[in-house]
Formats: sequence, C-alpha cells, structure tokens
Amino acid sequence: MMAQSKSVAIVGATGAVGKEILSILEERDFPVKNLRLLASERSAGKTLVFKDETLEVEELTDESFAGIDIALFSAGGAVSQEFCPVAIAEGTICVDNTSAFRMDKEVPLVVPEVNPEEIKNHKGLIANPNCSTIQMVGVLKPIHDALGLKRVIVSTYQSVSGVGTQGILELEDQVKDISKGRPVTSKNFTSQIAFNAIPHIDSFIENGFTKEEMKMINETRKILNHPDLAITATTVRVPVIRAHSESVNVETEKDIDVSDLKDLLADTPGVSLIDDPSSNKYPLAVNASGKDDIFVGRIRRDESVERGFHLWIVSDNLRKGAALNAVQIAELLV
Amino acid sequence: MMAQSKSVAIVGATGAVGKEILSILEERDFPVKNLRLLASERSAGKTLVFKDETLEVEELTDESFAGIDIALFSAGGAVSQEFCPVAIAEGTICVDNTSAFRMDKEVPLVVPEVNPEEIKNHKGLIANPNCSTIQMVGVLKPIHDALGLKRVIVSTYQSVSGVGTQGILELEDQVKDISKGRPVTSKNFTSQIAFNAIPHIDSFIENGFTKEEMKMINETRKILNHPDLAITATTVRVPVIRAHSESVNVETEKDIDVSDLKDLLADTPGVSLIDDPSSNKYPLAVNASGKDDIFVGRIRRDESVERGFHLWIVSDNLRKGAALNAVQIAELLV
Repeated sequence: MMAQSKSVAIVGATGAVGKEILSILEERDFPVKNLRLLASERSAGKTLVFKDETLEVEELTDESFAGIDIALFSAGGAVSQEFCPVAIAEGTICVDNTSAFRMDKEVPLVVPEVNPEEIKNHKGLIANPNCSTIQMVGVLKPIHDALGLKRVIVSTYQSVSGVGTQGILELEDQVKDISKGRPVTSKNFTSQIAFNAIPHIDSFIENGFTKEEMKMINETRKILNHPDLAITATTVRVPVIRAHSESVNVETEKDIDVSDLKDLLADTPGVSLIDDPSSNKYPLAVNASGKDDIFVGRIRRDESVERGFHLWIVSDNLRKGAALNAVQIAELLV
Repeated sequence: MMAQSKSVAIVGATGAVGKEILSILEERDFPVKNLRLLASERSAGKTLVFKDETLEVEELTDESFAGIDIALFSAGGAVSQEFCPVAIAEGTICVDNTSAFRMDKEVPLVVPEVNPEEIKNHKGLIANPNCSTIQMVGVLKPIHDALGLKRVIVSTYQSVSGVGTQGILELEDQVKDISKGRPVTSKNFTSQIAFNAIPHIDSFIENGFTKEEMKMINETRKILNHPDLAITATTVRVPVIRAHSESVNVETEKDIDVSDLKDLLADTPGVSLIDDPSSNKYPLAVNASGKDDIFVGRIRRDESVERGFHLWIVSDNLRKGAALNAVQIAELLV
C-alpha cells in the first residue's frame, strides 16, 4: 500500500469543494504520502487539519507542483486554465473540477461508476463533470445500458453551495435581513435568492440557454458516449443550502415495468433508491446533504408518451457532485 | 351600475385566499351591494375591513346564503362539498376555489381569459382551477390556438402559501428555528420545507403521481377542451413565500420562430412577457408576488425534439392562481 502512496495537492483548498476534498481524502483513507494545500495569496497562511495534523495553506505559484503526483483543482476555470498546464509539465496528473477542459476531446470526462475506462486515455488531465451532470448520468447510465435512452428533459432545483461558501453566506444573510425588514444585497446571484427561484445559473449564450444548461446537455452526451442523445435542460437556483434536486423525464427505446426500473436502479452501485410514496419516502435535499450516494425516487410511468418515465434525482453537489467524484477519480489513478 | 350590484359572500374569509378576495373586490371596485364574510366557528367574530367599513366574520351555517347572489368559496373541499349545494338551493351562484367539483362534467372550469364562454353553461356552480393549472393554461391557450399543442411536460416550483397562511408561518418558524440551532417542526409539509425541495403536493394516487400533478393534467385538458392532450407533471414545493414558478416544455403541431412566439405571448391579455436574458430579465417569484399577470420568459427552442419550446411561467398563486381568477369569474356573472 505504501508503495502506492501519492503526493497530493489540493488547489482551492479553502473553498467549499476544497474543504470537502480534504475531509473525503481522510474519510476514505486515500494513500496520501504528503499533502500540499494551495490557494490564492489571500488565503495563504490559513491552516486546515488533515488526520490530526495542522497544515498551512500555501500560495499557488508555478513552483507549487514540484514532486506532486496528483493535483485536485477546484479554484475556478481561470486558475485551472493557467495552472493545469504548469502542473502537467511537472508530471503531475490533474483532476480538474472546473469546466475549463471538460469538452476538450483529448480530456476524459469521468464519473467512476459510469465510464471508468476513459481514465486510461488521459494525457495528464482528467475532468470532473459538472455537479448537476454527475448525479443525472449516474442514474441515466444503467437506464441507457438496459433500455437505450431516446430523450431526456431535466429541470433542476440547485442549491446555493453550487457557487461556493459565499453562496451559502449570501442566502443566510438575506434570510436574516428579510426577517429584520432590511433590504437584501445580492452579489452571487442576479436577484434575491432567499424565498425565490432563479432560472439562471452561469451565463446566457446565444440560443437562450445558460452555460449550466449546455453543460448538462453536452457533458451527458460525452460521458454516455452518445453524441446524438436528444437532451434538454432548464437549470434553476433555489434557496437550498446543499444538494441539488432534479426532475428528470426520460423516453427509452425499449420498454420496462416501473417495478423492474426501480430494481435496476436499486442494484446500481452509487445509486440509492428511496421510493415509497405511501409512507412519504422520496429523496430530499436536506437528507442527501453530507451523503455519498445519488438518491432516486418518484419513479413512475409518464403516460404522455410511449416508454416515458419520471425520476426525481437528488445528490450532495459538494460531495458526489464535486469532491467525492474527484477523489474517486484519484483512487482510480492509484 | 347599481342595478347590477350583487350581494356577495366570501366563504373562508379569514384564510389567505379569502383575504385576497376581499382586497381584490375592493381594488377592482366590484359592484358589491352587501358583503357577508363567512368562516368556521373558530374565526367567527373576527373583523375585516372592506372599503373603510369594518365587517364581522359570521359562522358558516345552512342559513348563511339567504339573499346572497354570488358566493366565493375558499375554505377547503369538504366545506364546498357540504355548503355549495345549500347555497345553490338558495339561488346563490357559487364560484368554488377548491378541487371538489372541478372535474364534474356539469361544472364549468373557467379561466376568464381562456374559456369565458363556458360560464353560460353553469348550473349554479363554476369551478376555479388549481393555482398551478391557471398560470400554465393562460400561456398554453394562445400557443394551442396558434400552433396546436402536441405534448406538455411541466415541473413546478410551488410556494408554501399554496397551503394557506399556515404554510407561510411554518416556513418562517422553521427558518427561525434553524438559525437558532433548534429542531424544526413540520405540520403542513411531510418534511422540513426551509432550505429544501419536496416533490410531493397533495396526496399520492396509485399511478405514482400526486393529486396535484393529476389536477394539472386533467384540468388543463378540460380547460383547453383537448381531452387527449399528452401532458405530464411533476409538482414540487420549494421554500418560496408566494408565487409559483413552472418549467414548461411544449411540443407543437405547427412550427414558429422563437421571436414570433414571444410576440404571440406578449400580445396575450393577462400574460406579461419578461424575456431579456442579456440583462438578466426573466420572471421571478419575488417580483410576481402581489401582481395580477401571468409572467413568462426564458422562451427558447428545445433542440431535442421537433417544434419544441421551453417556457418559464411565474404567477402569484394567491391572486391569479386563486382570488383574482375567482373575482374575474364573478365579474363575468355580473
């Protein structure tokens, strides 16, 4: 085991996903030889605890990757674009949690339960898909394998932690301000997010979709290796702290009984079926927070189309949607 | 004008919708000859103000409808089931805001901008559709008339005021409890609604759908007089105080340019187009609260199907979704 131990760097260690990576490396007893915590100048000097050891956060520079085997990047697309090439030149394998390289044909885009075989094609960089994509493809993959996916329509209910710790603080501040009758301030969202639903995540592009919606569309096609999949998305921010929920409608090529579809998903590694309406059991964001699995429920036949099914998919966007998936990729590299 | 003045009763006058009816009757200067406020024994004796006059709430009994021309019911299905027949026997025309009679073939189900002609067929009772249905059909109607609707898939983001004032209080209490680190209590929802999204509104039926979802399906078919319309729904409660949002995907029989579709909806009475992504303009629940219109935006072509379009529809569930629509029906009766 010690022979396989790796020198690991976390880029963006003080962010919401960075901190989650740190705790998941510890939880899963990842074979860490040594750990380097990297962040912007502003965060350098802060300390974080890993396995009872207090580590100081260092400023990210061109010299940061000397001797590092695996670097987990989670500090925004611009940072990845600048520093992944630097790390790769040092022989470091990068697991990038940003959208910077995901659609690059040379870059594997990996969910370990879905397409682990892609990892072997890496050229120094493996991309971690978008949070909203990861939880959906985890459920779509076994359906596609068993039945063939014909069309996917998704509407999301995404938590504020999707923009990081500052999103959580902004929601909490707004709730406080509203309870005291004070005006609210919006910085990370285009409008008040407390007690609201904002149909806008990431920026708009010419076709009227947001980049977040196009990520769900394009990344799903790439991960499922189904470039022509008919798929569309509407992504919405809701005042939830943690865990994204998704209302997913699928059409399949082959038919299946609803009970067999439930069995199929219950048997899928990484997926947990919670589907007992008679006792009010279905996946919920507050229950998924801090958990590893992708939760699915409300499975039922959509009578408005042949071979149509509804799914309600919930997962912790900071864990399976980001940090856990990145660490799982790193585990495949060991 | 005075010749047309009506004696009006509000059944459930102290509820969230009842209070809204009272203020809308005043705002729109409805020709009220006299007004009777009715509620359960528990609320009898409370007072409410109408046009500077303080009125006492009376207990609803079999004698409540003597001399009443129009009664607006908003006190739950069981109350309507018991007292609408009593009122009708007195010659009172009932406008019922509950689901008790909506799917009755003898009962017109009316959105005044959509199917006002149905009112003439009434036999003493006109049903007000479900809040989530009203705002959707207001937008679907002009699309159906111009292009023919082929399929509709909706996922909702519904506010807590949908269950009345107690829903708002429960959300506010939970937010307070969470901020103080206290455990939350759930009464009106099956789980914590603060910082959560609950895919469950009204009770479940055998096909795995909720009654709320089936209301959207069946009421839309009835109102559009399109009994075979392919339509499906997933209804979700979110921690929003007021106004429901809906992610609606439609397929049409005929094609249309997105810009022409926007023009069509901009020209629809009761519908207001807010659709300028480049300046972050789209309908939002917090902005729709207290407004009369149905707001639509995020209109774009869904490339996953022929002649597919996305719509984001928001409206105040207590106003157009309930009280305003009921008063508009009453106006057609005058």
